[in-house]
Amino acid sequence: MTNLNPIHPRRLLLFSVRPNPQDFEQDHSANSQLGYIGSGWGSVSLLKKLDTSNYNVIVVSPRNFFLFTPLLPSCPTGTIEHRSIMEPLRYIIRHKQSAVKYYEAEATKIDHARRVLKLADLSDVKGEVSETEVPYDYLVVGVGAENATFGIPGVKEHACFLKEITDAQKIRTKVMDCIETAMFKDQTEEEKERLLHMVVVGGGPTGVEFAAELQDFFEEDLKKWIPDIANKFHVTLVEALPNVSVVLPMFSKTLIEYTESTFKDEKISVRTKTMVKKVTDKNIECEVTKPDGTKEKQILPYGALVWATGNAVRPVVRDLMAQIPQQASSRRGLAVNEYLVVDGTDGVWALGDCSATKYAPTAQVASQQGAFLARLLNSMAQTQELESELKKLEDLQLQAAETGDRETLDKEIQKKEKSLRRVKQLSPFEYSHQGSLAYIGMDRAVADITWFNGNFATGGGGLTYLFWRSAYISMCFSTRNRILVIMDWIKVKIFGRDVSRE
Amino acid sequence: MTNLNPIHPRRLLLFSVRPNPQDFEQDHSANSQLGYIGSGWGSVSLLKKLDTSNYNVIVVSPRNFFLFTPLLPSCPTGTIEHRSIMEPLRYIIRHKQSAVKYYEAEATKIDHARRVLKLADLSDVKGEVSETEVPYDYLVVGVGAENATFGIPGVKEHACFLKEITDAQKIRTKVMDCIETAMFKDQTEEEKERLLHMVVVGGGPTGVEFAAELQDFFEEDLKKWIPDIANKFHVTLVEALPNVSVVLPMFSKTLIEYTESTFKDEKISVRTKTMVKKVTDKNIECEVTKPDGTKEKQILPYGALVWATGNAVRPVVRDLMAQIPQQASSRRGLAVNEYLVVDGTDGVWALGDCSATKYAPTAQVASQQGAFLARLLNSMAQTQELESELKKLEDLQLQAAETGDRETLDKEIQKKEKSLRRVKQLSPFEYSHQGSLAYIGMDRAVADITWFNGNFATGGGGLTYLFWRSAYISMCFSTRNRILVIMDWIKVKIFGRDVSRE
Repeated sequence: MTNLNPIHPRRLLLFSVRPNPQDFEQDHSANSQLGYIGSGWGSVSLLKKLDTSNYNVIVVSPRNFFLFTPLLPSCPTGTIEHRSIMEPLRYIIRHKQSAVKYYEAEATKIDHARRVLKLADLSDVKGEVSETEVPYDYLVVGVGAENATFGIPGVKEHACFLKEITDAQKIRTKVMDCIETAMFKDQTEEEKERLLHMVVVGGGPTGVEFAAELQDFFEEDLKKWIPDIANKFHVTLVEALPNVSVVLPMFSKTLIEYTESTFKDEKISVRTKTMVKKVTDKNIECEVTKPDGTKEKQILPYGALVWATGNAVRPVVRDLMAQIPQQASSRRGLAVNEYLVVDGTDGVWALGDCSATKYAPTAQVASQQGAFLARLLNSMAQTQELESELKKLEDLQLQAAETGDRETLDKEIQKKEKSLRRVKQLSPFEYSHQGSLAYIGMDRAVADITWFNGNFATGGGGLTYLFWRSAYISMCFSTRNRILVIMDWIKVKIFGRDVSRE
Repeated sequence: MTNLNPIHPRRLLLFSVRPNPQDFEQDHSANSQLGYIGSGWGSVSLLKKLDTSNYNVIVVSPRNFFLFTPLLPSCPTGTIEHRSIMEPLRYIIRHKQSAVKYYEAEATKIDHARRVLKLADLSDVKGEVSETEVPYDYLVVGVGAENATFGIPGVKEHACFLKEITDAQKIRTKVMDCIETAMFKDQTEEEKERLLHMVVVGGGPTGVEFAAELQDFFEEDLKKWIPDIANKFHVTLVEALPNVSVVLPMFSKTLIEYTESTFKDEKISVRTKTMVKKVTDKNIECEVTKPDGTKEKQILPYGALVWATGNAVRPVVRDLMAQIPQQASSRRGLAVNEYLVVDGTDGVWALGDCSATKYAPTAQVASQQGAFLARLLNSMAQTQELESELKKLEDLQLQAAETGDRETLDKEIQKKEKSLRRVKQLSPFEYSHQGSLAYIGMDRAVADITWFNGNFATGGGGLTYLFWRSAYISMCFSTRNRILVIMDWIKVKIFGRDVSRE
């Protein structure tokens, strides 16, 4: 899903103008600069397009790979293998013009006054040094957001999220464990029904796509291999907001109706206007708003719960905001200007889900922001170069004795000045919506595409589904990932999905 | 690896003659029988060949898939995807002639006197019922063995094992985490060297194959994408026994020398006569026996430790042995007779790593034992059928008035008796060694094959390696697994291995 997807940009990007040659094999010139980057949509899009010969770039992220999040909802069911949607940062870094440093670490604090980033290795294996500092001059923050539980008790303890590869693995294990436990000897019918009730909270694209994938998995594979669960396996999609169209909110009414009728065909229950109030190990307590406006408390016994809604500001971002007076009124993340500069700072940018802009927190927005920042940083470097060349030419002109020489130099100066104006002419960031796509199960997809400034909405079987697949394939960052994803789709078509609990 | 592989048979197989029709959709006849099976080499080989229409078969195993263990050493490096070597028990069960029950549960106790098996669901998701009992009349125990640490302090806490899919995932994470931690900012050279030292303990095929795979991963992928580790990454193979030939002990001397020289080419250090005495989080304390017989204490600083040696008796088997006086003198597992009947019992068989036979605890042995037991159980059922038919014919003969009728019946009786003798004529289990194979890195393999009662030993590049691959492919239990494994090999040839830490 390309829109309103709560899964994506993460981590930190920053750049520094201080030369730090001991960190690099080649000795950069005095005005080369340090950079630090993350591993989400914004950060990787920036890294791919950045001319790294202009900066000493350092990338920091606790996750050493880029994750193609639009296909993450296909992972728990085994439609897509995890490795097929992972692209190691090391591949991207090795393909850059000049050396880029990468540290697998969590950015624990951005010390804005000292212009220093604090890093900590929070993974299981720790070396002698597991905390350190990195000074920066330019900084790009792209740490993304964390899962929001809205303070609802029990969500953190009992729900699975769907933001990372490990989340997908956890969901997989949980769903298969529920099924096998339901099949345990002498299990009561009521308990079987509870264990086989799969609840997805969040009517956004992630929730919708995962519910659809799970139902496909049941219809196409589980039912065949474990026929005993056929009458009891059940997927429910829960959405809090009181508007039915909240399921895929960025789509037109026709597409929403198409999605809802498809879900009805698939026997996925959709419960809108249903607020989750509390989660225990076996029950979800909800408050349902009835058509007449009255509210009713309901208890949903469940086996597995997938929480696919809400973004919360990460602690490192909240801490940075607290250091900057101009950020006091911002709630959703770092407030930025039209060039993505963090309000109240100089040389610090933010992009993706950790920034608060007028755009939805989607992969598409973050990716365009990354490309924009790459252009901006590349032109900053060019500007610096042109300005120092201009300075040299002007000095030469002053010293020149002959009129002819002076005229030649004058022409060259004018040419450079023109280039400089062109380079400096960078218009502010403007998001261009390419459209939204979502898989809704039974080999059907919905698409809402902007083509030639017109709107092209389609919901339907074969064609839209093929379009959905090819769009995702073309969005993959590398040929390797493209082929792996296609191979996965072929494998599932031929052999079906695996029903092991790994 | 097909020989001396410590990875494989697991879990429990048992059969019962008590009819238990409420457990099955179709009503079995009064003499139908209950069976319980596991998920390792022996158990699955038995399940595949058993005529399940003769018994009420129940399978019990905490792992709901069969694992093709010979390719497990290829998993941590990503040469083989986990799902490619997993075959869901549900697939196998659904392909049987008649209904087979499966419970994903641990067999916690075999109550031999009551002929009852106690089950517990020990996975994360538990239903209302999570402990139960199943009565049996015939029982096949195939629970395999657990990892032996020989009481060496620190092994359980700090080493990774290589018996299950989760082990492979843990090794993967650990190795990549060590590499990223070594690359952390300001890490000392000494600490880098420690973190990048990968130690494999156990000179058997699993250890040898994993060490070779890891070195391949480094040479072909890690070095290219993370060049900074090129001078420091190092694999060491440690073996306790004082004989150098203990590396791949079932191979001929030529093959062992070939393996050792290949390891030298690959720069894998082989340390034989080295006893691990203690493991801490950063060091392995060893006792090395020098050529002159003196012993020296050595400290090996390490990053990741893979423990690929030793089988220990599982608690459920130890408990069963304690219930049977005839098992008092057995140490390595359940003592069985030449028909695999557990000594001191009636109608209880054991196979694979949990049984103590004169054969090595390998996949090949367990698999042949499973096939043997299937033949035995099938012929037991046929015997019962023939005997009851004979009884009927003899009764008819007694009542027959005409001489002609009696003669016809007599002929039929003689025919049945002949069939019965043939069916009953089952010779004891005899293991037929098909040969041993091992991958030793750099696209080389060693093979020691028994063909036409002759011995055919080969160690070498291309050809043996291709033979190794095709042998493994043909050993896979299903076409699906075969194709998936081939696809994995092709993927790695084209794209190399992934260097993400997932």
